[in-house]
This record gives sequence, structure tokens and C-alpha cells, in this order.
Amino acid sequence: MNMKMMGKFLSQMVAIEAVFMIPALIISLCMGESAAVNGFLLTIGIMILTAGTLFLSCRKAGRLFGAREGLVCVGVSWIVLSLLGCLPFVFSGNIPRFIDAFFETVSGFTTTGASVVPSVEALDKGILYWRSFTHWLGGMGVLVFLLAISPSGKGTGFTMHLLRAESPGPDVGKLVPKMKQTAVILYSIYVVLTVINFLFLIIGGMNWLEALCTAFGTAGTGGFGIKNDSMASYSPYLQNVTTVFMFLFGVNFSIYYLLLLKEFKGAFKDEELRLYVGLAVACVILIVLDIRPLYSTLEESIRHAAFQVSTIMTTTGFATTDFDLWPSFSKTILMLLMVVGASAGSTGGGFKCIRVLLLFKILRRNIRQILNPQKVMVVRSNGKVVDEKVLSNTNAYLAAYVVIIIISTLLVSLDGFNFETNFSAVLACFNNIGPGMAAVGPTCNFAAYSVFSKIILSINMLAGRLEIFPILVLLSRSAWTRR
Amino acid sequence: MNMKMMGKFLSQMVAIEAVFMIPALIISLCMGESAAVNGFLLTIGIMILTAGTLFLSCRKAGRLFGAREGLVCVGVSWIVLSLLGCLPFVFSGNIPRFIDAFFETVSGFTTTGASVVPSVEALDKGILYWRSFTHWLGGMGVLVFLLAISPSGKGTGFTMHLLRAESPGPDVGKLVPKMKQTAVILYSIYVVLTVINFLFLIIGGMNWLEALCTAFGTAGTGGFGIKNDSMASYSPYLQNVTTVFMFLFGVNFSIYYLLLLKEFKGAFKDEELRLYVGLAVACVILIVLDIRPLYSTLEESIRHAAFQVSTIMTTTGFATTDFDLWPSFSKTILMLLMVVGASAGSTGGGFKCIRVLLLFKILRRNIRQILNPQKVMVVRSNGKVVDEKVLSNTNAYLAAYVVIIIISTLLVSLDGFNFETNFSAVLACFNNIGPGMAAVGPTCNFAAYSVFSKIILSINMLAGRLEIFPILVLLSRSAWTRR
Repeated sequence: MNMKMMGKFLSQMVAIEAVFMIPALIISLCMGESAAVNGFLLTIGIMILTAGTLFLSCRKAGRLFGAREGLVCVGVSWIVLSLLGCLPFVFSGNIPRFIDAFFETVSGFTTTGASVVPSVEALDKGILYWRSFTHWLGGMGVLVFLLAISPSGKGTGFTMHLLRAESPGPDVGKLVPKMKQTAVILYSIYVVLTVINFLFLIIGGMNWLEALCTAFGTAGTGGFGIKNDSMASYSPYLQNVTTVFMFLFGVNFSIYYLLLLKEFKGAFKDEELRLYVGLAVACVILIVLDIRPLYSTLEESIRHAAFQVSTIMTTTGFATTDFDLWPSFSKTILMLLMVVGASAGSTGGGFKCIRVLLLFKILRRNIRQILNPQKVMVVRSNGKVVDEKVLSNTNAYLAAYVVIIIISTLLVSLDGFNFETNFSAVLACFNNIGPGMAAVGPTCNFAAYSVFSKIILSINMLAGRLEIFPILVLLSRSAWTRR
Repeated sequence: MNMKMMGKFLSQMVAIEAVFMIPALIISLCMGESAAVNGFLLTIGIMILTAGTLFLSCRKAGRLFGAREGLVCVGVSWIVLSLLGCLPFVFSGNIPRFIDAFFETVSGFTTTGASVVPSVEALDKGILYWRSFTHWLGGMGVLVFLLAISPSGKGTGFTMHLLRAESPGPDVGKLVPKMKQTAVILYSIYVVLTVINFLFLIIGGMNWLEALCTAFGTAGTGGFGIKNDSMASYSPYLQNVTTVFMFLFGVNFSIYYLLLLKEFKGAFKDEELRLYVGLAVACVILIVLDIRPLYSTLEESIRHAAFQVSTIMTTTGFATTDFDLWPSFSKTILMLLMVVGASAGSTGGGFKCIRVLLLFKILRRNIRQILNPQKVMVVRSNGKVVDEKVLSNTNAYLAAYVVIIIISTLLVSLDGFNFETNFSAVLACFNNIGPGMAAVGPTCNFAAYSVFSKIILSINMLAGRLEIFPILVLLSRSAWTRR
């Protein structure tokens, strides 16, 4: 690993973060929140110093290249961004303990939305804005942003590795041959959809800061609320708007690109999209049947079922009702959706629909292979043969996924909470959802966990957002040795 | 699928079951249990009729062959054996409801040990014997027994498929070139170890029926107890003997064969054996540290920790203490061990140590492959390159395993119990352990579940014992169509 190369790369990332902190600073200035203003100023100062020092000492480094460097850079930069991004919380006194602020920031950037803050409404407005903005930035990815604004034609091979490491899904979709153009298209769709969502919320009567923070949380499928009861006290209109937009941000963005190109047939025949929509509809129906006695009208049952399915499946984590009080069957459906997650190439987390689809196809092939040992069989997706390498990576992903969940649950259980709490806390963090069940349910928060568990859960959130391997590689010795 | 061929095969299986029921009949006769005597007589009559009819109508069928026939035969015959084997429970009135008797028998043959009987001590002695004997027969497998007693040289290709379908592990170990000889060696080791276990229990003061039933439950890693408190009221000596023998029956039997051949080096260098022993020791130490305050002496803590680790890891399911009252960390370790299970080629269930080992090796290869995309890498086990087909089957096994656990938990949750109960019930049945946590913990039983859930859990037990694919194949359309 060439440290100088990484230093140069990190300096750019930190500079971007500093620039993005300025709006939060301005909001705090306008609101007259002096503690928050000082916190932001101090943090921006530290960031400029860090970025400057790194840039000056590493500017002579050559270009980065290769899969290994890509993975390590992504892993390290997300950790550094979280370490620096949490400083305003600490300096302003809004979240005084460093580990809590770090947990909250990792939760923000990874679009998890798990919180340690007991009363969100007591936070400064600028801090609230920054907290929600981390969702938006983390949703599409800081590196993808860097790629979108960088001069074109720069190091295409390496940027491919970067994009692959930061983007969700088993096979990164190059929309157009040039990576920079792909990044620009992705961010354009992202910005436009966010603005539309914002306008719908404004129409529903939110003030501009509320609408902005909610749109950030929805677009990044993050889920940090700005009310203590998340979205329970909002009007049915605002809840339904959020249901729809959460669901839209859980769709693979390449589908939107196909729609822009007017390739409707290709878009609507996409197997992952069909699974994503079909599963959501089926789960809403099952839950409505199960929870019907709990609510007075059918409309209310459907609204809550649809909202909760959308928020859990897209791994957003808003809530309109305490689903921890639902019957066991509905809760188990939600836990299933926690694992499945959203589509690849969206801002949502989880195992991803496409991987579920591939696993079932691999399984079907395996059974057929046992019955007909002589035949050579391939796995197809959307009519095309899937590369065996993608299949083997999907299998390895499942193995890593199961191993991480088991080990994390074991470590977190040292705190003594019950199994449902620990298991759902790990599921909710690792799949970037936010609230879990029982003691980490939608009306509770993660503050009660020990420092050790918060570190484990933070690693879970990062591993979930970056799809495991960039974080696993950081822990492997061979990533740090010279070739 | 040739139905006549299967009928002929089934007639042999049912005949063996009828023969094995005679000792239970004799015990009931000696004890003067008239209801049980009638139940056994009636059942044996039905079995003779069934076997005879099948044999006469299908005797002209040719030989069975091929993987598909092997899988289907194994799946169907285990279901038929359970359907017939449960009749004495019903006829004698010991377990009056058919679904409960069926659940209990499947639990017996699959060596699960999950029970619906509220008071075991109230059962007739002959019924108790038969209940425990199903563990012993199911542990090593009825088909393996049929193979061991069949005239040698008969259909080697097909018997290989049978053995593969019934024996646990990713790669069936042929100890010697001839399958019949392998079956004879396996059953010989099994009988000898069971007899030694029986003698140790007799020395400890058990009466012969107690010792026989306990030895059956230990050897098959089943776990049906003959006392209401399982093994809690037995002396520390008897508990420790059982700890050791449960652990011994969880070792791959090919290790014992190596020891008989005096190949000590090969035996003790076996990677699976090392993982199995190392994991057990590590878990005992961790649990002792965790539960130390709960027991008055260190000896007691170690005894209970070792017993519970041995019983859960080998998927036996006896208990000396209510581990559901242990701290969350120890309970989570036990749940982890439920999943890992025993060694391949043993009588234990679970995912199997060798598969865990292979998954970690596959994962390590995947990470290295990402870091060095050019190199071609192989996975080695015990110094030998593992066939890619075995690796791909291991991956498919994990996928099927996860899918079955998720779907089963979802279906069982319809009964409304809490998540820990449902999840651990599925884990305990699918991994053939027996007791789970919470409402299905070691002091409780499965009687409260609905008929639907009992069917789901029975399918889980069968799928776990037969390692998924024979049961999945039964559900697939192509198994039943003519080639």
C-alpha cells in the first residue's frame, strides 16, 4: 500500500466534506446558535488543516491504481470522513460523548439512521441539518461525487475500482462507457428526485428546513427524523408521499436512466425490479391482513403497512407507528425485509434483491445439477448468462454476511440485552436500516449499548454500506504489505 | 420416477422397522403394559401387511439407479418410516393425537429430540424404549443399515447415491472401496461405542432400561430423556460420562477408522477434528467465565458448561440445567453452536464443522482473489485440493440453509409466539437439537404449537437430518416426471 497516494486521495475527500459543511454553518449563523457555529468553524478549520497537510506532504505521489488500493481507499476514507464529521456534534455540546457522536455520524453517512439521541427536537437546527445531510451525501457516495466533479478522463481503471467498492450490488452497472459520465448521470437523477420530493413535502405544509431534512433522509434511505416520534405526527399526505419516495429511492438508478432513454420495455421487464415490487406488494397485503384489528379504518392499516414495508425494505428507518407492538407474524415479515433490503444500484442497503434472486437461481441450478449430473447449466438474469465470477462472489457475500451477523450478535450480547434486541440491532445496523425491535425498537434508541458494542455496530454499519469487502480488506494483513 | 422400483425398496425398509419393533413389544409384554402391547402388535401387523403388499406388487421391478432415484427414495422412506413408526404412540394412547405422535417420531428418527410430551415419566416402558430406539436407528441411518446387511456386490453405483443422500457431510467418505464394507464398518464402530457407553452408565448406577435409553439418545445424538428434568437429577458422574460420549459421537466416524488402522497422525491432524475440539474448548471457557456467579462451585460451573456445550454442539439436546436462564452472552454462544453443529460423518446434525471450515476458506480465497485478480487460487483441506464442485455445493447448502430458516421462522410466527421462541424452535428442529430457548427452552416442550407449525417443524427436522436436498427434491416437479 502506497501511503502517499492514499494521503493525496484523502485530502480531496476531506476538502469536499469541509465545503459541504458550510451550509450547516450558515443555518446555525442565521438561527443564532453560537455553540453550533463555533463547533462548525472549529471542525472546518481542522478539516482545512488536515486536507492541506495531507495534500502538501503527498502531492508528489503518483496515481493510484488497482483493486486493492481502491478497496483500501474507500474503507479508510469513510472512516476518516466519519471521524471528522462527528466533531461538530461534540464541539457544540449537542452530543457531548465522542463515541456517541461517532456512532451517530457513521449511522448518518452509511444511511443507517440508528440514533443515540434521546430527544432529537432539542438539537440545534444547524446540527439537525448536518445530521440529515450526511444521509444524502452517504446515500449516493462521496467518491461517486468526487468522480462526478473531477476532470474527465482521469485514471479510468482506478475509478472503476473505486466505484465498484462504493456502489451497492454484485455487478456495478456502467450506464455509459465513461465512468465520469456515469457518476454525473447518477448524481443528476439523485438531485432531481430529491428536489421533487422536497417540493411535495413543502406542498404538504412542512417548513423548508423540515422538508429539506426529510428529503435528505428519504433520498439517502437514511431515516434520521427531526421529530421525536419520527413521522407519526405528520399528516397522512406527508406519510404517503414519504412511502412513495422511499420506495423510489430503493429502485436501481439504472432503471431511471433506461426510462430517460425511453427504453420502457427493458426497464419494466427487469427481474430485480419485478422481485422488488412484487415482494413489497405481497408483504403489504400479508401485514394488512395481520394488523387489521389494531387500527380503526382499513385506510389506516394500509397506510401504516405500506409505510413500514417501504421504510424497512428500502432500509430507510422512518416510522409512523410502533411496529414493535405488531403481532409476531408481521414483525417477522419486517425482519425478513430487513435482510432482503433494496435494489442494487439504489441508495438502499441490505442484502439486495438481485442477490436474493441470484441465490435462488443458484439453488435451482444446484438441484437440477444433482438430478442431471451430466448437463452443464448456466444461470441467466434478464435473459443474459451471468458470469460464474459474479455467482461465486454472491456466494462469498452470503457467507461473509452470515459470519458477520453471527459474530456481531455474539459480541453485542456481552451487554446483556435479550436476544431479540441484540439480533435486531445487528440486523438494523448491518443492513443500514436504523431501528430494530424490542429495546432498540422504533420508540427507543441505541444509547444504552456500551462503548464496545457501539464500535462493533459502527463497523457493522460501515461493512453494510460498503458491502463488506472494503472493510474486510482493511482487516486483512495482505492489504497493507507492499507488493 | 419408477414407482415400482420405489415400492420394492420401501418394502425392505418397512420390514426392517417391523423387526426392530419386536424388542419394544417384548419389553411391554414383560412389564405387563397391555395397551402398549396391543399398540405394538397392531403396528407390526400393519407393517407386515404394507411390506408384503408392496413386495408382492413390485417384486418384478428392476434395479434402482441414479442420483434422482436415490434422493427420492431416501426422502420418501424417511417419511414412511415416521408415519408407521408413530402408530404405537397413538394406538397405546400414550400420545393420542396423530400429529403429536408423528412430530415425536420424526423428532426421534431425525435425532432431534424435540418433544410434545409434557410428562415423559408417565409413558409406558416399552413406548419409552421405542421412542429412544428411533434415535439410535436414525443416528446412523436405516439405509446404511440396510446396506450393511444386504448381500454384497449389489448395485454399487446406486448404493453410493443412497449413502450420499443419507450420510451427513459435503463429501461422503468411502472408508474402503466397497460401499457395503463401509456400512458394516460404520455400524460396527457405532455398536461398540454404544455398548461401552451403556456399560459406563450401568457402572454409574442406572438400571438397564435407563442405561439403554440414555445410550440410544447419546449415540444417535438425539436427546429424548426418560426423566422430566432430562439429566438434571443424575449424579455428576453420569452427567460427565454423557458429556464425553455425546462429544465422541459428534466426531467423524472415519477418524475412529483411522485410529483402528493406527494412523494416529492422519487422525489427529484432521482439520475438522481440530476445529470441532478447539471450538468446544473455547466455548466452554467463555461460558464458564460468564456463568461462574450462578453456581456455587467452579466444578459445577465447568460441569454444566461442558455438558451444555457438548449437548448443543453435537445437537443431542439433553440438559442438566435450564440454560434459558443463563446470561445473554452464554445463550448466544449456544445459539451459535446450534448452527455450527457436529462433524460430518458423525451422528450429529447442524451445518457441520467441515462446512464452516470450507466457508471460511472460500471467503479467504475470495478476498485474496479481489486483491490479486490475476492469480488462480485453490482451496485446500487437510493438504488436499478441494474439488470446485464440493465448494459450489457448500455454497448452495448455505443458501438453502438460510432460506429454509427464514421461511420456516416466518410460517411458525403465525402462531404468535415471540421471535426468540420461533427462531430458536426452527434452529433447534432444523439442526436436530431438540430444546430451543424461551417458550421452547429445556424445561418446556413443543406441544403448544399449532398443527400447521408442527408440520413445518417436522419438515425442518427431516430436511436437517437428510441435509436438505432429498427433501427439496421431493418438492421439485422434475423429480416426479419420467425422463
